Amino acid sequence: MKIAFVNGPNLNLVGRREPEIYGRQNLESFLDQLASEFKEVQFERFQSNVEGELVRYIQEAEAGAIVLNAGAYTHTSIALGDAVAAVTIPIIEVHISNVYKREVFRQHSYIAPHVAGTITGFGLAGYRLAVLMAMAL
Amino acid sequence: MKIAFVNGPNLNLVGRREPEIYGRQNLESFLDQLASEFKEVQFERFQSNVEGELVRYIQEAEAGAIVLNAGAYTHTSIALGDAVAAVTIPIIEVHISNVYKREVFRQHSYIAPHVAGTITGFGLAGYRLAVLMAMAL
Amino acid sequence: MKIAFVNGPNLNLVGRREPEIYGRQNLESFLDQLASEFKEVQFERFQSNVEGELVRYIQEAEAGAIVLNAGAYTHTSIALGDAVAAVTIPIIEVHISNVYKREVFRQHSYIAPHVAGTITGFGLAGYRLAVLMAMAL
Amino acid sequence: MKIAFVNGPNLNLVGRREPEIYGRQNLESFLDQLASEFKEVQFERFQSNVEGELVRYIQEAEAGAIVLNAGAYTHTSIALGDAVAAVTIPIIEVHISNVYKREVFRQHSYIAPHVAGTITGFGLAGYRLAVLMAMAL
Amino acid sequence: MKIAFVNGPNLNLVGRREPEIYGRQNLESFLDQLASEFKEVQFERFQSNVEGELVRYIQEAEAGAIVLNAGAYTHTSIALGDAVAAVTIPIIEVHISNVYKREVFRQHSYIAPHVAGTITGFGLAGYRLAVLMAMAL
Amino acid sequence: MKIAFVNGPNLNLVGRREPEIYGRQNLESFLDQLASEFKEVQFERFQSNVEGELVRYIQEAEAGAIVLNAGAYTHTSIALGDAVAAVTIPIIEVHISNVYKREVFRQHSYIAPHVAGTITGFGLAGYRLAVLMAMAL
Amino acid sequence: MKIAFVNGPNLNLVGRREPEIYGRQNLESFLDQLASEFKEVQFERFQSNVEGELVRYIQEAEAGAIVLNAGAYTHTSIALGDAVAAVTIPIIEVHISNVYKREVFRQHSYIAPHVAGTITGFGLAGYRLAVLMAMAL
Amino acid sequence: MKIAFVNGPNLNLVGRREPEIYGRQNLESFLDQLASEFKEVQFERFQSNVEGELVRYIQEAEAGAIVLNAGAYTHTSIALGDAVAAVTIPIIEVHISNVYKREVFRQHSYIAPHVAGTITGFGLAGYRLAVLMAMAL
Amino acid sequence: MKIAFVNGPNLNLVGRREPEIYGRQNLESFLDQLASEFKEVQFERFQSNVEGELVRYIQEAEAGAIVLNAGAYTHTSIALGDAVAAVTIPIIEVHISNVYKREVFRQHSYIAPHVAGTITGFGLAGYRLAVLMAMAL
Amino acid sequence: MKIAFVNGPNLNLVGRREPEIYGRQNLESFLDQLASEFKEVQFERFQSNVEGELVRYIQEAEAGAIVLNAGAYTHTSIALGDAVAAVTIPIIEVHISNVYKREVFRQHSYIAPHVAGTITGFGLAGYRLAVLMAMAL
Amino acid sequence: MKIAFVNGPNLNLVGRREPEIYGRQNLESFLDQLASEFKEVQFERFQSNVEGELVRYIQEAEAGAIVLNAGAYTHTSIALGDAVAAVTIPIIEVHISNVYKREVFRQHSYIAPHVAGTITGFGLAGYRLAVLMAMAL
Amino acid sequence: MKIAFVNGPNLNLVGRREPEIYGRQNLESFLDQLASEFKEVQFERFQSNVEGELVRYIQEAEAGAIVLNAGAYTHTSIALGDAVAAVTIPIIEVHISNVYKREVFRQHSYIAPHVAGTITGFGLAGYRLAVLMAMAL
Repeated sequence: MKIAFVNGPNLNLVGRREPEIYGRQNLESFLDQLASEFKEVQFERFQSNVEGELVRYIQEAEAGAIVLNAGAYTHTSIALGDAVAAVTIPIIEVHISNVYKREVFRQHSYIAPHVAGTITGFGLAGYRLAVLMAMAL
Repeated sequence: MKIAFVNGPNLNLVGRREPEIYGRQNLESFLDQLASEFKEVQFERFQSNVEGELVRYIQEAEAGAIVLNAGAYTHTSIALGDAVAAVTIPIIEVHISNVYKREVFRQHSYIAPHVAGTITGFGLAGYRLAVLMAMAL
Repeated sequence: MKIAFVNGPNLNLVGRREPEIYGRQNLESFLDQLASEFKEVQFERFQSNVEGELVRYIQEAEAGAIVLNAGAYTHTSIALGDAVAAVTIPIIEVHISNVYKREVFRQHSYIAPHVAGTITGFGLAGYRLAVLMAMAL
Repeated sequence: MKIAFVNGPNLNLVGRREPEIYGRQNLESFLDQLASEFKEVQFERFQSNVEGELVRYIQEAEAGAIVLNAGAYTHTSIALGDAVAAVTIPIIEVHISNVYKREVFRQHSYIAPHVAGTITGFGLAGYRLAVLMAMAL
Repeated sequence: MKIAFVNGPNLNLVGRREPEIYGRQNLESFLDQLASEFKEVQFERFQSNVEGELVRYIQEAEAGAIVLNAGAYTHTSIALGDAVAAVTIPIIEVHISNVYKREVFRQHSYIAPHVAGTITGFGLAGYRLAVLMAMAL
Repeated sequence: MKIAFVNGPNLNLVGRREPEIYGRQNLESFLDQLASEFKEVQFERFQSNVEGELVRYIQEAEAGAIVLNAGAYTHTSIALGDAVAAVTIPIIEVHISNVYKREVFRQHSYIAPHVAGTITGFGLAGYRLAVLMAMAL
Repeated sequence: MKIAFVNGPNLNLVGRREPEIYGRQNLESFLDQLASEFKEVQFERFQSNVEGELVRYIQEAEAGAIVLNAGAYTHTSIALGDAVAAVTIPIIEVHISNVYKREVFRQHSYIAPHVAGTITGFGLAGYRLAVLMAMAL
Repeated sequence: MKIAFVNGPNLNLVGRREPEIYGRQNLESFLDQLASEFKEVQFERFQSNVEGELVRYIQEAEAGAIVLNAGAYTHTSIALGDAVAAVTIPIIEVHISNVYKREVFRQHSYIAPHVAGTITGFGLAGYRLAVLMAMAL
Repeated sequence: MKIAFVNGPNLNLVGRREPEIYGRQNLESFLDQLASEFKEVQFERFQSNVEGELVRYIQEAEAGAIVLNAGAYTHTSIALGDAVAAVTIPIIEVHISNVYKREVFRQHSYIAPHVAGTITGFGLAGYRLAVLMAMAL
Repeated sequence: MKIAFVNGPNLNLVGRREPEIYGRQNLESFLDQLASEFKEVQFERFQSNVEGELVRYIQEAEAGAIVLNAGAYTHTSIALGDAVAAVTIPIIEVHISNVYKREVFRQHSYIAPHVAGTITGFGLAGYRLAVLMAMAL
Repeated sequence: MKIAFVNGPNLNLVGRREPEIYGRQNLESFLDQLASEFKEVQFERFQSNVEGELVRYIQEAEAGAIVLNAGAYTHTSIALGDAVAAVTIPIIEVHISNVYKREVFRQHSYIAPHVAGTITGFGLAGYRLAVLMAMAL
Repeated sequence: MKIAFVNGPNLNLVGRREPEIYGRQNLESFLDQLASEFKEVQFERFQSNVEGELVRYIQEAEAGAIVLNAGAYTHTSIALGDAVAAVTIPIIEVHISNVYKREVFRQHSYIAPHVAGTITGFGLAGYRLAVLMAMAL
């Protein structure tokens, strides 16, 4: 089984950026570790700060499931929401921080209505839950 | 380890009520099955349609974690949100349906800002993820 | 035919409470009188000030129709609206006062979208119309 | 006793227009049938698509009661609301469909604050309840 | 000089309708009296409950000024506002009651942005001020 | 093929009214010219300032398509929207001016959700596009 | 008869400030002229840029009527609205410009609900209408 | 004189729950102390987490005054507000914390419009003020 | 101990102004009476209708506590709220009337988030409670 | 004459994506067909999922007209609206689906105020109308 | 060249008031220091807590430029905004703190639309930038 | 010292685009001139129309300060605001035009809460102020 991990803007900074919100572990090294836990799963990773590149990647993804953390585009990108709605691969939405403790504008998601489900606030561990869920879909 | 499962109003109907939204499996029998999967975990269950009884249960719970699906009170009960904020046991919020596909009033939660994390839209399987997460906390 | 009359919070005070809004006749004695008018109908009555008990009663009701005046919970209880949506017995909503002449918050109903119909503002006589309608369903 | 039935815009189409909302029976033939049920009542009928003609009719009506279904003007016509407020004949508001299940803009009524009561969602049978209520006023 | 007095819906009821708001004097007899005060002015009068007839009258009016009390259409009729904007005759807006003491929806006017000025709340005497102003324009 | 052109309030003033918005050509003469361009199409025309007459015309129209410019009623008339929804003839909505450059209240349409499509802002030429589209439906 | 003219902030600039809105005539000289027209009326004048001084003046005014143009405080001063509500002298509100053509925040008045009536948009001539009205009260 | 102290949800936790907001003193022991200060007053106490039980208690209370801290139900319970409006015993509303420093949703009260007065933000000392006020009513 | 009583606009009228809201007793004479009750307290009083003078007084006050009734400025003055936040003397907010029974705009306070506590609706007796509280701070 | 067709995010999926909304024909092949219909017109095409590339393309376009379907960026991109406002080439806005039947957020356009006109809801045929209009500009 | 420095309410407290927001340097001594830096500029200073005195000062100022920090009146004073709009001297708006990090009500300015430009958040150094800009205008 | 100048969408058009708003001088040539004024400062420049490229540039910038004019992304890009919050280099926000005179949507900034300060409305001269400020940080 192949799972595509799609991470949006500023998620390349996780571990360095605002550690009181996002924690101190690097997202890349966490995904390495996760890959070593789930050897039966093929990991594909894509990070971009560009909205349209995320749209294109989702359009073209060939995988059994997508684990998507669209970062700030979650709250502003109808285009990304449309792409998620357009593809038939099941998509699992992950947020590292508990967005409900933060600014009001982080509490709306253009993506959530179109995904299989959403996992929010468990830190990087949310990606592990997403893998478990993806394997069970 | 003990995990308390707290389910709110109308969740005693799951499996019978609006199956196109909540699925056809009975919540009680699903939790039985889950208990048999996780033999190392002690399961305590509480369901009530009464807001104040849910408040009291959370105040008095003695467990390593609470898995809370407050049902409709999620969206209307400041009292329940206050109880969640008041206790120190980690609480994991679960929703069976993808609330973001439904009425607007189901998209606000008085509970989410106070929980460890939220799992939404994966059907009953969301409870399994919550158990896994609770064990890892 | 059996009809269940379900009355919510403070409706036990009708006849005593704010008579310029609710009139001076006691609801219980009015229902007695109605029962004597409609001898072919079996009357079951339930009044509670507790939201969750109203939810439970509606879940478990066995009747040909429910006549429901949820009082103040009409405007705040998604849980009650969910219970009404979940059962298959036809439910007729009654309000004694003309809620449109009162506070704005009384003009929204979480229950109305799920009922067979609504009768508002005719005082206690609205219950008689509801019986007639229930018999004709 | 004379009852005036006043029906607003597009209600001349009932039976033909969107039958999944308004049903398949013609309003005129239903009122014929109703008239034959209540022989002691004198039926006067008026339908217009013109807001101002409805205003004028209500201003000049000579009847014991008016049964008013203002259709779409319910939601936009302050003029009609003013006319209803200005006359002393009791007015009973009827809506065929359950407006609370439809667009948000159908949930506000400029007329409701000024009527004796409102009957909503019972289909054409709502007119029969209105006659019964009018006779009891 | 000719002045056209254009009165909208329900203003034919003034003197009879809600006298605590509109006073007890008939509008027609007041305008007769006004005409006898201002013999040098030619009075033309038009009252209609039909929005579109008011639109047409304003489109076609031939006068030195129009004194317009659009009644309830003041608050809902973009069409009337468009007609007022479209003609070049100066138009003076009059309201009998102090609309600011009444419902919130009476405090918005689609007409006011397009008139020479507005006179509000002085009862029928507002029409006299309007004549004086029209003569001075 | 017959096309019915239905024009709403103040559109009889086009060419005279606010030419910086609507241009200087008379709508009637433009439709004459259009009729001479499309000789194979039978033109029927109806203009009214009365909301209810537009409702009635649309209810009774017998044509292959309706080209509807409801003018200011576009933004306020649920009744007209209901009539458009009720008939089965395809309706094409036209606006002469670019309503998005004007007042905010001109940016909402009660009619648009029920039409085949909408053409906005091309001046009178929009009617020509509508004819072409109607012929292709 | 004594009439007090109370003018609020920046009205001392009329004639100099933004003449395309307020005209080119000085308010003081206009009131001089008005005083010479109405010799039977005693004119008292007060202008202040200080909200509290306007409050005090209105509290202590001894006159048959007050003509009040509160300028910008119209839209922000509950204190001034309270003072107007507290005194028993009739107060006539005047605005020089047509506030409905200007910013949205100029369309709300804390004063209007408490005055005898309001005259808006006729330029300085509005003060003359106010005198005429005050004399007729 | 008898005073009934009615405390709502989570107030049984005061002294333990979020001490930076509610302080460290136990509410029960504070009321004991207050009772010993005011020996001439009979203290009756009721705490419940259940909205409907609070409604019932207020309906049935027999006391010279009620001191009511409805906790979170202050902000969500129309039913409780209705009960307060329905009884004739004077009710004094108390809040321990300064709700105006907290979440926006804590700044609306369904109860305040119906009470004799409200005391907010003085910590437990607010109950002492309420007793003093109750004795003076 | 010295307590400064600071009263805002129109409170010099209490006893004369709208007695159905503010009662019939003069505020000055009530404070005289209060001073004779609390001989151990030094009373300093300041009333002004000018927002900026209230700001200055609070900045410069030398007292053990301030009892502040800012009247209408409560709802409009960020400047006064800033002054209250800037000083370190404890400030107790008092409102004579129950503002929650009145206009919506009286229900917001720029001052409340910065005070020790608020006492609302007990009439002039609220000042006595404030003295008692100030002595206990 | 050269016309540039600029299509935004996800429009490369038309024909495959949600065919009940966008139809089953491929946009590219439709434009091929259109090019063969209008041989006198030079077709230039650009599709991108990246907002900034669409901005750049519009800035640099050299054509007689642009036919722009900005897809989801229509509703979120001020940058694209600014680019459309900045260039002098006439731009015609096209939407394939009837956006007024869809989510509320699709009813706002940052682009519409700056274009020559808008064609909405006619499916791919809207592009043909746009070509006709572009040729007539 | 003369520059007038106009500072509004509570700015006389800078250096003492909430130093975590406004810093610890006294505004007066900072302006002294600034004056010694820019010996070629004549410094005039005015601070007031009274809205109307600020209005008057701006009306009468004789300077090459005004540097205006209206403090809290920035957000509430239409009168001050009107004064700024009325004068022809260029005005530069300064805010010491980054208002965008603070309460929402500090993010609206009635003054900003009328000034030459705004400098926000640089602490007292913002005044130096304003002097530099004023000299370059 | 190195300063990075980051300019967002359409700012490459400054000097050509809407000169009544942005002036007629080219931004590039202005920055050349500025560089010659401040020879001790190393200028790095980056302009992009692509949101994600601006995010990346800010993430990777190595400079003593960033002068950021995000253009239209100021108002729509949470991603850019997050990048600004994530880096530790001080960032100075510049806007050429006075955004407070323009559309309402230009008055909100996702970036301002995270910057050292903001300079708005002084035209290109705002960049010079920013350099001066950056040198003084």
